[in-house]
Amino acid sequence: MSFTDVPRRSATSARLYLGVDLAATLLFAVEGASVGVHAHLDLLGVLVVGFCTALVGGVLRDLLMGDTPPAAFRSPVRIVLALTGGLIAFVLAATVAEVPAGVLVVLDALALGLFAVSGADKALQSGANGWVVVLLGTITAVGGGVVRDVLVNTVPVVLVASVYATAAAAGALAVWIAARLRWSPIVGMVIGFVVCTLLRLAAVAFDWQLPHVG
Amino acid sequence: MSFTDVPRRSATSARLYLGVDLAATLLFAVEGASVGVHAHLDLLGVLVVGFCTALVGGVLRDLLMGDTPPAAFRSPVRIVLALTGGLIAFVLAATVAEVPAGVLVVLDALALGLFAVSGADKALQSGANGWVVVLLGTITAVGGGVVRDVLVNTVPVVLVASVYATAAAAGALAVWIAARLRWSPIVGMVIGFVVCTLLRLAAVAFDWQLPHVG
Amino acid sequence: MSFTDVPRRSATSARLYLGVDLAATLLFAVEGASVGVHAHLDLLGVLVVGFCTALVGGVLRDLLMGDTPPAAFRSPVRIVLALTGGLIAFVLAATVAEVPAGVLVVLDALALGLFAVSGADKALQSGANGWVVVLLGTITAVGGGVVRDVLVNTVPVVLVASVYATAAAAGALAVWIAARLRWSPIVGMVIGFVVCTLLRLAAVAFDWQLPHVG
Repeated sequence: MSFTDVPRRSATSARLYLGVDLAATLLFAVEGASVGVHAHLDLLGVLVVGFCTALVGGVLRDLLMGDTPPAAFRSPVRIVLALTGGLIAFVLAATVAEVPAGVLVVLDALALGLFAVSGADKALQSGANGWVVVLLGTITAVGGGVVRDVLVNTVPVVLVASVYATAAAAGALAVWIAARLRWSPIVGMVIGFVVCTLLRLAAVAFDWQLPHVG
Repeated sequence: MSFTDVPRRSATSARLYLGVDLAATLLFAVEGASVGVHAHLDLLGVLVVGFCTALVGGVLRDLLMGDTPPAAFRSPVRIVLALTGGLIAFVLAATVAEVPAGVLVVLDALALGLFAVSGADKALQSGANGWVVVLLGTITAVGGGVVRDVLVNTVPVVLVASVYATAAAAGALAVWIAARLRWSPIVGMVIGFVVCTLLRLAAVAFDWQLPHVG
Repeated sequence: MSFTDVPRRSATSARLYLGVDLAATLLFAVEGASVGVHAHLDLLGVLVVGFCTALVGGVLRDLLMGDTPPAAFRSPVRIVLALTGGLIAFVLAATVAEVPAGVLVVLDALALGLFAVSGADKALQSGANGWVVVLLGTITAVGGGVVRDVLVNTVPVVLVASVYATAAAAGALAVWIAARLRWSPIVGMVIGFVVCTLLRLAAVAFDWQLPHVG
């Protein structure tokens, strides 16, 4: 079902992987649901968008790795987190105020970095080659956002935002390089997360543009 | 490939599952194809939309359960039903009249209820926990419609219709509760179907609205 | 993981399958990326669209066959080809001129034919029945284009172009018929490719229309 036998790893790094994955799930649920609020969806629509934003990237990664049922479906924790995040966003928007766009960008960048390194780490543990580690890290990170944008019928941010998938790929690449250098997975994931999130935030802050034609 | 060993079950309930699944496939094919006719697609486009509406929910469920190749691909019956349904809708529209919107809503509600209980039942048989039973029932029921709406480039009904995924989730939940109470699967599926379809029709008839922000 | 044991086949036909699959990957990458250039995406967006157009059809086929991880993820060759094709399209558009629409139609028809026969051939080798051979050939051929069009937010060509999925299905059917007649896989794939690509090009050249309602 996976690329090769998963090598043994320390309980600490396994716990780190889990913590990172769950934190990204919650952040993306809040962020995706807030996009649903901005799109004037009702409570259910908001929950569905938050749910898909939070879970689709990881589910896609697991399907592509042949690791079924996906982790999101093996225990209730990710499902509950994804619904809770959506509910938080809805209640906040209904009682306090809609989450400002700037906060959404930061939430999104944090979740992007967390999923990029957790996706890359999971691919790495399954024995995938470097290209696939980077690809699965990127898919894990951007998959949810693509579905979110397709659902609310806009062109996905991954296509129009400069340095979005690029940032995710850089974070995943850092995880892979750290593993090749035989550094601890913890160091690799921290570096990858920082690289991805800072790259993304810097791209927004300084309005970096990749080359265009015409 | 599945959550646990599938428990033995009576031939009657297995036949019921199959009948429900096939009926929903045909209904959704007719309904989806009619949406394609409304969108002024040609014969092929109409067949593709009907086909995807009928099959995507179940295929998605099977992929997520790791049950591959999906049931839709193991024998020709679902493929033939999905194409037949699309052809019926096209020929009706070309010779008699387009299926009225009211009829489409009823067809959709019936298929929604049938797929919610067949999806939940299949997940239940594989030993999935309650969250996953509800989730897979809901995905089976709404998956086809999401793809239909994305294909004809509108915001999916599941996001904008009050009580759509909610009705599917309620139907799936009824199947799970009936199983926990050790009722026969037949009773659970009948109750779940009635709950889902009536909830959906009532929501349309009485124009129920879930809370909105702003 | 697959329908049945894969029968032994000659090294020549296995090499043919691989060559066809890789050629289609490169062509679709160039074509999809050019659509991204036309949609005024930046370098990254262009690469993502080319990448998805090139790889999604085959990945979908492999997921549906339960053959995971998908071929695209088992070695770097398809990933590198898909990125290279996208880069070629971008550099060409930036330095020479955008690829004219007529050339895109031809590239697309060639890739459609190549993927229709490679998808059908792979399904055939896994022991799938005729319906599934045709369906998987068609999905392999049109899957990438559907995602490309959904990403740039237009109604997929498969729904609005006369004789698009039809051509792919005809090509896949030819592969299946050739196999039933016990012809060599090479003959079947050549016939299927010619049938599909000529059908598609003829439909464009002579503006064939399938029946419409209203």
